[in-house]
Amino acid sequence: MNTAHTLDTQLNVFKTFDPKLSDNSKNAKLLFLANILPTLQKQVREQCGDAEFVAMDTMNFWISSMKDEVIDTIKVVDCIIINDAEARQLTDEPSIYKAARSIMDLGLKAVVIKRGEYGATLFTKDGYFVAPAYPLESVFDPTGAGDSFAGGFMGYLAAQHEITNETLRRAMVYGSVMASFNVEKFGTERVDALEYSEINQRFRDFKQMTHFDDIPFERSTTAG
Amino acid sequence: MNTAHTLDTQLNVFKTFDPKLSDNSKNAKLLFLANILPTLQKQVREQCGDAEFVAMDTMNFWISSMKDEVIDTIKVVDCIIINDAEARQLTDEPSIYKAARSIMDLGLKAVVIKRGEYGATLFTKDGYFVAPAYPLESVFDPTGAGDSFAGGFMGYLAAQHEITNETLRRAMVYGSVMASFNVEKFGTERVDALEYSEINQRFRDFKQMTHFDDIPFERSTTAG
Repeated sequence: MNTAHTLDTQLNVFKTFDPKLSDNSKNAKLLFLANILPTLQKQVREQCGDAEFVAMDTMNFWISSMKDEVIDTIKVVDCIIINDAEARQLTDEPSIYKAARSIMDLGLKAVVIKRGEYGATLFTKDGYFVAPAYPLESVFDPTGAGDSFAGGFMGYLAAQHEITNETLRRAMVYGSVMASFNVEKFGTERVDALEYSEINQRFRDFKQMTHFDDIPFERSTTAG
Repeated sequence: MNTAHTLDTQLNVFKTFDPKLSDNSKNAKLLFLANILPTLQKQVREQCGDAEFVAMDTMNFWISSMKDEVIDTIKVVDCIIINDAEARQLTDEPSIYKAARSIMDLGLKAVVIKRGEYGATLFTKDGYFVAPAYPLESVFDPTGAGDSFAGGFMGYLAAQHEITNETLRRAMVYGSVMASFNVEKFGTERVDALEYSEINQRFRDFKQMTHFDDIPFERSTTAG
C-alpha cells in the first residue's frame, strides 16, 4: 500500500494544452505547478513574473520520458514536492538524503520528499525537518493524498507574510494534516466536510506526537 | 536495506542455558530482557522481583516457533521493543497502529516499534510519539542498531528518578541517537569512541529536526 505504482498514463486533453493565464493569475505571488508536462509547467511559471515562491510536483512518467525538461523546470522554481521513489529516480541516488541534496543543488530553496505512511521530510539550505504521518488505523482511499499535502502546504504559506524556515516547517505539518484527512474517506468527501477547528486540532495532535523536552542527559543525575 | 532478513538461527550455548542471577542482579530496579528464548526471559524476569520497569526484545524466530511462550513473557513485562515486521507477525495485523494496540492489550505500559530508516514509534496507554531516524547519508553496518537503540533507551531511563510519558519520549530519542552512532562504523567501533558531548549534541539535533512552533492557522492573518 505504501508504494505508488503507475499502470498507465493517458494525457488526453493535456496533449495539446496551451495554458494562457488571466492577468489576475499572472500576478500570483505564490504559485504551485501541479503535475503535468514539465514544459507546460515552465511556460506557466514564465507567465508569473511576480511570483515570490514557486513550487512544483512531477511524476515518474515525466522523469523517465523527459528528464531534461523536468530538470529545466526545477531550475526556475523554488521548491519541489515529490515522493521518495521519484527523488531516487531523478537522481539515481538510493539514499533520499543524497537525492534531496542533489536536487537542491539545481538551485532550489526547499525540497519536500513525501514518504507515504512514514511522513514527509523538508530539506532547506541549512536545515532538515521531519513531519511524521498521522497514525491512521486504516486508509480508506489514498488517491489525492499528495495533492492534499501540496494544498495544505501551499495554502498555509499563502496566508503568511513571509516564507521562512519556521513557516515552511508549519506548512509541512499543515500539508500532513490535510493529507491525513483526505485519505479517511472516498475522493474529496472528508475534505469537503472539514471545519477549520478540526484542522487546527489535528495540527496540535502533530505537535503532541512529536514533542519532547530538550533536557540533555547528565551523568550526575543517576538515581541511587 | 531497510528490511531485516533472518537466514539462519543457531542457538549454540543458549540451547541448554539456565541463567542463575547474582543477588546484585536480582535487585535490579530496571531490567532489559534481550532477545533469547522467551521461557528464559520469563525465568530471568521472575528472579527480579523488585524490578520496577522491565522491557523485552524478541525476534521472528521465536514468534513463529513459540508464539504462546512469547505472549506469556510479554504478560510479565512493562514494555516491548520490537521492529514493525515482528509486531505484524505477532498480531497478524497489517497496520502497525492496530498491531501496537493489540500488543498493548496484553498488559503493557509501553510498546516501542522500530522502523529502521523511518525511525521509531512509542505507544503508551494514552499517548503516541514518533522519533525520526537520524538522516545518515550512508549506513556502514546496521548490525546492532536495535540493541544500541534498546541500550540508549534503557540507559536513559536508568538514570531518571521516575519513568513518565516525558522520560519515555526522551528515552526514545536517546535510543535513536545511540542507534545512529552505532551504524556509522563497523561493529562497536563508533560507540566505543563516543563522548557524552557527542551524544547530547545529536540529541539536540533530533530536537532541531522535529521542532515546529505550535502557532495555529488563523484565517484573519491572510496576507494582502
